[in-house]
Amino acid sequence: VPVFSAEDLRRAGRRLLAACGASEEESGLVADELVESSLRGLDSHGVVRLAMYADHVRDGTIKPGAPVTVVKESASTALVDCGGGFGIVGALKVVEIVAEKARASGLACATSVHLNHVGRLGSFPEKLTARGLFGLASTNSPRHGHFVSPWGGREGRLATNPLAWAAPTDGAPLVMDMSTSMIAEGKIRVLLQEGSPVPEGSILDADGSPTTDPGRFYGPPRGTILPFGSPRLGYKGFGLGLLVEILGSALSGVPLTPEGQPSGYGNGLFLMAIDPEAFGGRDLFRRLVSEFAAYVSTSAPAPGAGGVILPGALDAATRERRLREGIPVADETWRQIREAGRRAGIEL
Amino acid sequence: VPVFSAEDLRRAGRRLLAACGASEEESGLVADELVESSLRGLDSHGVVRLAMYADHVRDGTIKPGAPVTVVKESASTALVDCGGGFGIVGALKVVEIVAEKARASGLACATSVHLNHVGRLGSFPEKLTARGLFGLASTNSPRHGHFVSPWGGREGRLATNPLAWAAPTDGAPLVMDMSTSMIAEGKIRVLLQEGSPVPEGSILDADGSPTTDPGRFYGPPRGTILPFGSPRLGYKGFGLGLLVEILGSALSGVPLTPEGQPSGYGNGLFLMAIDPEAFGGRDLFRRLVSEFAAYVSTSAPAPGAGGVILPGALDAATRERRLREGIPVADETWRQIREAGRRAGIEL
Repeated sequence: VPVFSAEDLRRAGRRLLAACGASEEESGLVADELVESSLRGLDSHGVVRLAMYADHVRDGTIKPGAPVTVVKESASTALVDCGGGFGIVGALKVVEIVAEKARASGLACATSVHLNHVGRLGSFPEKLTARGLFGLASTNSPRHGHFVSPWGGREGRLATNPLAWAAPTDGAPLVMDMSTSMIAEGKIRVLLQEGSPVPEGSILDADGSPTTDPGRFYGPPRGTILPFGSPRLGYKGFGLGLLVEILGSALSGVPLTPEGQPSGYGNGLFLMAIDPEAFGGRDLFRRLVSEFAAYVSTSAPAPGAGGVILPGALDAATRERRLREGIPVADETWRQIREAGRRAGIEL
Repeated sequence: VPVFSAEDLRRAGRRLLAACGASEEESGLVADELVESSLRGLDSHGVVRLAMYADHVRDGTIKPGAPVTVVKESASTALVDCGGGFGIVGALKVVEIVAEKARASGLACATSVHLNHVGRLGSFPEKLTARGLFGLASTNSPRHGHFVSPWGGREGRLATNPLAWAAPTDGAPLVMDMSTSMIAEGKIRVLLQEGSPVPEGSILDADGSPTTDPGRFYGPPRGTILPFGSPRLGYKGFGLGLLVEILGSALSGVPLTPEGQPSGYGNGLFLMAIDPEAFGGRDLFRRLVSEFAAYVSTSAPAPGAGGVILPGALDAATRERRLREGIPVADETWRQIREAGRRAGIEL
């Protein structure tokens, strides 16, 4: 697998997006964010998305330069119309809005409409921690992404609906980013290509029977991904998935029933920030989170484990390594990026 | 097993708590709340707690009549000192505070200090739905309740840290209430008494080895409960448990390290309310949540399942049945309630 430096990938990404019609600022924000995900080993949300975004600009799904406007607001809330621009650009604007309101009011949240794919969800609450804030975020997806069956059902009714939070510490922030399903669809696709089985208890075939065969998931007819906690405790993952759905769509007033489904790719982002200054204080919060993380980490390791792994620690380790050794990019991914470049009239 | 009507249990609970020194209002709020949990089949949070609360009044852990005071506040935030009174009374006061602020500001949250055991967590966000609000809640617990091992560890570092949310619909609200561990400690105790095994993948013994023997969990030395999602995805439950810990303690400025641990029984409640009127509108929110719940429920049933089960639906069915048929109360539980009554000078 070819290996690239983060800087080379950033440059390629910026050039590609600019050639598609994005402004210099947009190209920079989007390319940097995708490369950051690749650095952390979250390849499904990394540079593999560059060609997809380029396609979406060409087919009109993504509208470069679209204005991000606050449709409705109070001192602590905002409903934000992201105008169908780059999802990452819209989400970063939501971060600014929420951070400013939280620093003024102690607490703030925003929801979005017309927001395209935002990439790595954890990135947005993480950015709030740089301002001493605690952040919580979720994103739902429109109906064509409804791979996940509800508890007791066998037909897709929810997306993998991720949930993320981040808290500042005296060192690196804690960043939790999880789907509310047993596995991400992107990972099943990788296993299909490899000819590997899916971990047991993760998916159903179209008849609702448990399977480990990724081919039986894709069908057609397509199967489903089980909610997180399945088989025994899947009601919990289902409940978390519904939470994400409600915050991402119903709150903004976006219908998601088959009849009222909005067209086009999109994420419904919910982002909340709490300023600990409104409670026990910003410095004390940072110190107590640090102390608690340290206390948790003093647990003796479970047999076979290397010790306690705090949220975000594995990603941070991968980031260190990839900064040193470079970022592996699959041949097919690089081929698609170059092809997207050629369609936009540049050679990468 | 003896069966009681809800009304008889309410009356007994009120009399017991009043005999222990609670005011008429406190006795009513606490007894009604516990009976409500028993009605829904959540017996571990129901009338079984009456004798425990009576004991806590006697040993000074619970201070009847303690004032609930707002220590620090803004238009959308409050840090509430519950003064060591009945946890349920304190939490219900927090509900009032958060509801009022959310109706005025669109969004509000509160955290608590000196709050005793709150009972069924889902009750508090559920009460917000009656005012058209969306609610999210969590509670952590002090160190002696740290039964849950962190991801990669084998020593208890977190409580079972529940998380709950509730949303209004055109019918009964959706109410999700889940622990962030594989099983509640109370359930392991029941299995120990029955001589039944614990479901596989739920607990470790003191050496960190997986076991299904509840006796090996209690030891001594004591084992641990695994975080929700274990073994493969336990990092998710661990991350959710940390979230609850951070919102329940660090935000309020309450240290939880072994050195700084506050003494006494207590829950750190975090409660947030969103007024959909600040976003897409209250009526539209209620309608969209209802429509989404209906859409999810149209999934064909999984093999062996009776169909999709929405959050709160099983509890509601149990409530219907127990209102008709009465509430079964274990002999031992009723014996403890009567004994607590006798110690307080009344015959139940």
